[in-house]
Amino acid sequence: MIPCPDPRLAAQIAFIVEIDKLKTILRQTLLTDSSRQENDAEHSWHIATMAFVLDEYADAPVEAGRVAKMLLIHDIVEIDAGDTFIHDEAGHSDKDERERAAAARLYGILPADQAEEYTALWREFEDRASDDARFAHSLDRLQPLLHNFETKGGTWTPHKVTADKVEKLLPRIEGGSKRLAGYARALIHEAVARGYLAPQP
Amino acid sequence: MIPCPDPRLAAQIAFIVEIDKLKTILRQTLLTDSSRQENDAEHSWHIATMAFVLDEYADAPVEAGRVAKMLLIHDIVEIDAGDTFIHDEAGHSDKDERERAAAARLYGILPADQAEEYTALWREFEDRASDDARFAHSLDRLQPLLHNFETKGGTWTPHKVTADKVEKLLPRIEGGSKRLAGYARALIHEAVARGYLAPQP
Repeated sequence: MIPCPDPRLAAQIAFIVEIDKLKTILRQTLLTDSSRQENDAEHSWHIATMAFVLDEYADAPVEAGRVAKMLLIHDIVEIDAGDTFIHDEAGHSDKDERERAAAARLYGILPADQAEEYTALWREFEDRASDDARFAHSLDRLQPLLHNFETKGGTWTPHKVTADKVEKLLPRIEGGSKRLAGYARALIHEAVARGYLAPQP
Repeated sequence: MIPCPDPRLAAQIAFIVEIDKLKTILRQTLLTDSSRQENDAEHSWHIATMAFVLDEYADAPVEAGRVAKMLLIHDIVEIDAGDTFIHDEAGHSDKDERERAAAARLYGILPADQAEEYTALWREFEDRASDDARFAHSLDRLQPLLHNFETKGGTWTPHKVTADKVEKLLPRIEGGSKRLAGYARALIHEAVARGYLAPQP
């Protein structure tokens, strides 16, 4: 624990040090060079950057800086709750409960006003309760599609994921951006055409 | 290359895929658990998050979302130019030239208006040409100090870095935040007191 006489700054620094663990939480997604699995911190950096690059495609006006903030902090709960693979139905049954406890502990390291703010921002994301949150979800779902296409089916092949399952992710992308959902749909079709993705089980 | 009929979106997606390489550019800094070196994408995520958590300590009013955007994209040039260790004086002699060429190629993947915007934002950061940029530098320099303290001298010990050298980083932190520079100074003293950092060569 790093010493600091000011309790407010001490709490903020403690949070900054604690969230370093996000760099060790692995996702199923491979890097585009297929060298290894991506971790949550890298994923969060990638989609927060996408918020600025792609904000023009949001169906409703969004504040890119606020979307980025949401995306930078949305996966922090996985330090305690772990990453749940998108196609793991069993893992999703208690995901909410695990993540709620994680949010209380992790955002709770911050000073009270920020703990409340970050918890609310995370819930807004989880509940898709605003245009910012819906666009944030579009990006969170689009990015692994790009990785799976670039790696010629990286995560899809070993997990026997088929196009009908991947297409179930489209409404979430469409919730924030019809344009990016259209692009994602075309990408899935092209992945099937190229043999990266089996059309059905 | 991912197919896309719209040249603007195609360029943006090409940029998003290209910058995935930032996840493979290693820094000298260790993760706080000492398990391995940190990469540029993780570092960028960490300091962009710090922009939101610590913005109250900026000496001049800053726009945290804009500081975060700057920090998310500031290291992308290292995909081509590589990371230059802060205490490597020889490596710094041609750093500017290498990074300028990298910026032209990498931000140049984007559509022309965004290429211009991102290049200007990167130059603003490099030149410390605004309050946002100066505060961004404070965070970029503070974060490795936290890692080196947490790892009991992680990068300092193998590179024989001494306190007089680390103190040379303080003016850069002070340029954006006297408060965070004061905290960093205390941290360096404490690192010497604990034997994590030798006082001088």
